Amino acid sequence: MTQLNAQLAFIRELDRLKSVRRQALIKSDNNRQENSAEHSWHIALTAVTLQEYAEEDIDISRVIQMLLIHDVVEIDAGDTFAFAAIDDLNAQEEKELQAAHRIFGLLPEAQSQSMLALWLEFEKAESADGRFAKAIDRILPLIQNVQNSGGSWARHKVKKSQVLARNQYLDGLAPKLWDYVCEQIDVAEAKGWLIS
Amino acid sequence: MTQLNAQLAFIRELDRLKSVRRQALIKSDNNRQENSAEHSWHIALTAVTLQEYAEEDIDISRVIQMLLIHDVVEIDAGDTFAFAAIDDLNAQEEKELQAAHRIFGLLPEAQSQSMLALWLEFEKAESADGRFAKAIDRILPLIQNVQNSGGSWARHKVKKSQVLARNQYLDGLAPKLWDYVCEQIDVAEAKGWLIS
Repeated sequence: MTQLNAQLAFIRELDRLKSVRRQALIKSDNNRQENSAEHSWHIALTAVTLQEYAEEDIDISRVIQMLLIHDVVEIDAGDTFAFAAIDDLNAQEEKELQAAHRIFGLLPEAQSQSMLALWLEFEKAESADGRFAKAIDRILPLIQNVQNSGGSWARHKVKKSQVLARNQYLDGLAPKLWDYVCEQIDVAEAKGWLIS
Repeated sequence: MTQLNAQLAFIRELDRLKSVRRQALIKSDNNRQENSAEHSWHIALTAVTLQEYAEEDIDISRVIQMLLIHDVVEIDAGDTFAFAAIDDLNAQEEKELQAAHRIFGLLPEAQSQSMLALWLEFEKAESADGRFAKAIDRILPLIQNVQNSGGSWARHKVKKSQVLARNQYLDGLAPKLWDYVCEQIDVAEAKGWLIS
């Protein structure tokens, strides 16, 4: 297979992420479930918009590219709700690693290796870029749920303590965003969207 | 309004692009119509994947950001088919400019100006980054239609000459991609997906 044919196979495969449904609901589209492709677009632009709040030096180009590919593995592995049982989340990790090898493996060797490395950097969140990308991945669902009367929290009876624990990650990485999150979690509790 | 509140208003507004339907059909999701948010994700990753084919020096970070925002104006202006009548395409241009001012105008001043400038750079395609971004915007629908037995071409009885004229843009900018396009247009004609 030529270099270009391998790249086109990858581009065609990406189309399938548009059929992977997440728990988030889209207010502007009759509350249908969001898919992972449009989520990845939204989160990349959220990172662009909020980049000034990163405490560490980041390379926004790498952060965007991480976020564009972070969910591609769901083509094989599907989406797991952030507040699912811990056994389900662990099983998901293994499935996603296999998926990463298969899907990025469609690309020519050098490109495949660099995409896989970028995906792992996001998963491990051990670099400044990986940490900020992960922080943005935590805050966007909160912004959407607050916009949408509790959205997936309300539907799944999520607890305030769970959302606090998940977003505490922002403390230190983006303190101003963490302040906003704390404020909004209190609002959500007061409105009954999160269980106390 | 604080800086952060303005940015959050923009991020919330972006959600609406997920309800703007395009002519492209998604094979992996029962041939439903594609929306402009998931399209923007797909095209950004297409640019990342095919960047080596740009004849001019490009800054991939700027190209990606252009492609992420290029369709945001459709929140107000809707999508117009690439092969619509010329009067419709001209009217669309004016609506999109107004939309760009309103939507990017939700952001804090400096950020608003830089997003608007980036959007205009894509529209005018007078820089190397703008030209390559535009070239990718031309080739992705072709890749999708060839994958999907003619897709929107077949549905709208599009002519071979129209697709050739629209993609000729690639000649010079990305000659290897142009060769691929010519080949695929011949295939599409032979299969009856494009009218001779």
